[in-house]
Amino acid sequence: MNIYKAHIVFTPQPQRFEIIENGYVVVENGIVQGVYSTLPKELSGMPVVDFGDRLLIPAMNDMHVHAPQFRNQGIAMDLELLPWLNSYTFPEESRYSDTKYAERMYRRFVRELWRHGTMRSVCFATIHCESTRILMNLFKEAGMGAFVGKVDMNRNSPESLTETVADAIRDNECLIAEYNSPGSLVRPIITPRFIPSCTPEMLQALGELARRYQLPVQSHLSENCDEIAWVAELEPESRNYGDAYLRYGLFGQTPTIMAHCVWTAGEELELMKRHDVMVAHCPTSNLNLSSGMATIRTFLNEGVKVGLGSDISGGHDLSIFKMIVYAIQISKMQYCQDKSKPFLTLSEAFWIATKSAGQFFGKVGSFEEGYDFDALVIDDKELNHDNYSLPHRLERYIYLGDDRQIVHRFCKGKEITEPEV
Amino acid sequence: MNIYKAHIVFTPQPQRFEIIENGYVVVENGIVQGVYSTLPKELSGMPVVDFGDRLLIPAMNDMHVHAPQFRNQGIAMDLELLPWLNSYTFPEESRYSDTKYAERMYRRFVRELWRHGTMRSVCFATIHCESTRILMNLFKEAGMGAFVGKVDMNRNSPESLTETVADAIRDNECLIAEYNSPGSLVRPIITPRFIPSCTPEMLQALGELARRYQLPVQSHLSENCDEIAWVAELEPESRNYGDAYLRYGLFGQTPTIMAHCVWTAGEELELMKRHDVMVAHCPTSNLNLSSGMATIRTFLNEGVKVGLGSDISGGHDLSIFKMIVYAIQISKMQYCQDKSKPFLTLSEAFWIATKSAGQFFGKVGSFEEGYDFDALVIDDKELNHDNYSLPHRLERYIYLGDDRQIVHRFCKGKEITEPEV
Repeated sequence: MNIYKAHIVFTPQPQRFEIIENGYVVVENGIVQGVYSTLPKELSGMPVVDFGDRLLIPAMNDMHVHAPQFRNQGIAMDLELLPWLNSYTFPEESRYSDTKYAERMYRRFVRELWRHGTMRSVCFATIHCESTRILMNLFKEAGMGAFVGKVDMNRNSPESLTETVADAIRDNECLIAEYNSPGSLVRPIITPRFIPSCTPEMLQALGELARRYQLPVQSHLSENCDEIAWVAELEPESRNYGDAYLRYGLFGQTPTIMAHCVWTAGEELELMKRHDVMVAHCPTSNLNLSSGMATIRTFLNEGVKVGLGSDISGGHDLSIFKMIVYAIQISKMQYCQDKSKPFLTLSEAFWIATKSAGQFFGKVGSFEEGYDFDALVIDDKELNHDNYSLPHRLERYIYLGDDRQIVHRFCKGKEITEPEV
Repeated sequence: MNIYKAHIVFTPQPQRFEIIENGYVVVENGIVQGVYSTLPKELSGMPVVDFGDRLLIPAMNDMHVHAPQFRNQGIAMDLELLPWLNSYTFPEESRYSDTKYAERMYRRFVRELWRHGTMRSVCFATIHCESTRILMNLFKEAGMGAFVGKVDMNRNSPESLTETVADAIRDNECLIAEYNSPGSLVRPIITPRFIPSCTPEMLQALGELARRYQLPVQSHLSENCDEIAWVAELEPESRNYGDAYLRYGLFGQTPTIMAHCVWTAGEELELMKRHDVMVAHCPTSNLNLSSGMATIRTFLNEGVKVGLGSDISGGHDLSIFKMIVYAIQISKMQYCQDKSKPFLTLSEAFWIATKSAGQFFGKVGSFEEGYDFDALVIDDKELNHDNYSLPHRLERYIYLGDDRQIVHRFCKGKEITEPEV
């Protein structure tokens, strides 16, 4: 059993922060047993790790990130989607046939997630089975949680990133056999790149794989208007983009998360709701690629689950704290255009990044009883130069802070030290 | 004479970066004499300060920042404009009647500008003459350039921030007498807070002051729709918000910079053009306060001058590098809505932040001959983990970097060391 003392801040519900000044969190076998302002009698006398005047908050979850685009982070942002894919994204992903290169880059990627306090992530790898194994092993080695998807694609893709359906299924089966153990922090996820890069046969086979092994699914949905038109052309019998996934068993038949959903509305929104598909909202990516502004307020009103994603390298910033800021800002632009859609408050956006996103991994993202103890200790003394209130200290950390203030990181109860690069 | 060697990057024009790998910049009496890829014969043998594999770029200019709102940076972002002003902004500014408090906070503020590589700024202080002197002296002590405005306001303001016209003019005259020396890096600027907080008598008197001493002017313009409606009510004879300033001699009769201009269009835009009024574009503030998205592309097309401002504490981030990113992102949202308005490229936004903004201070923001040597040395080795090209190194620094990579700062040729707090 471990007992930690600090100023505890988390969001059991979106409407407000739960703040326990000089509170205690009791953790056993990686699971939160309870949070207290005074330690219960039966625990008094137990050793306490006292973090002093620091904040203890849930760790961050990155719900959509392309690990092999790590090298391209923050470059070629002046390009539009197609030339960017063809000149940067695809050539870079092709390099991951080289496992040495993959290991070098993936080590840095995992270290960067760690640096930014992201303890769980939902990753796209590449089509390469061996490189995907390397990434999964690096997450295991680090002790950080991840769903990692070998990417599947067999049309409208460069030759170096095209595979046969049989190869894709065989590789997925290998990874499933090796990694799909219940309770493991690092697990496979079925990952068609998106409808345009997978033939109906591929989609069908992937849907069957998801069903057979009861595996989760991730992909891209309704990111930009040209893409949506393209999908409508490729899948003329589908009622919308989401419906195209649904027909292949890839839209909520098992737990599903879809990145972007910028243009999701009407019937597609209904479908997400009915099939409990989660949105990975990627605000910086949607800005950088001129995709548009996803209406998160509408998703919340409709009860659709939402998490935040960095979407490296469409997004340029791996910090989910910065995604919180951007998510609020985008919602404010929408509020500015339509006052009937209140903007996201700080506690709502924090809840989205932690407890709401965390449910994709199980009981993650809160300090309520039974939750995995995924936590960050924030030493904000540089930012707290004038005796700010606890809510303002958290707000200043989110808006102004960076990795320098994160002094401890925990994933499922275990302190995670800096991964080797 | 000083000769510096590094990878030199700057924007003599918006369309593209000028990049000189392992180039030299020659500086005499704080002024750039020339930039060379090979040192001219007559200079060979002169001592060279070699920055090695680092980038040398123009320093940043913050064209709109409220120095006394430094304490409020990154707090209360969930509030809308009016409660935010009344609960946070005005009470905080009132504290600056206390010169001890002012000095403590202003020291931190100047240090933070320094930390982020901002060597010139255009600041709002408060109505308090003594505190404004403190801020001006701190800039002088640091060696950093600034226009600092004692703020003037005498209506629709809390009592603690209301002054008489006579007092305002007397205080301004004092500051002018003390600081208005030609060639000084720190100079006064006439600063009506905005039309709603100044009576016609105040505006008239300030306009006369600007004309008499040929002083520049700063204020707020067309930030949000309610404000614009309020101004129309208060100034029924003005054709638009800008015209209201113009009638009082505060809109281009002397060099003028107006913050925000989110809703400036049509006749007001024409007026800005005709009177050569510069826009201080504050993208984070406009997002955080749900103000809207200023159409910078239109300003550029029309030949209206633009610079970038952090607008602390409506904005939360003092880094002008981050304002470059946000300015691009906002322009991409507008491009998304109207494809006839190309988004800002990186070189355009960099040019706006440096050479375009810098013209408000004289010849600042470029390394062309005759420009003040305002520069930053960027040590990006942590970001340059895989041998990126120079343009990508700069792009990665702007998108991913922070103050940790700024290893030297120069203002008008002088190396600026960390200001004391």
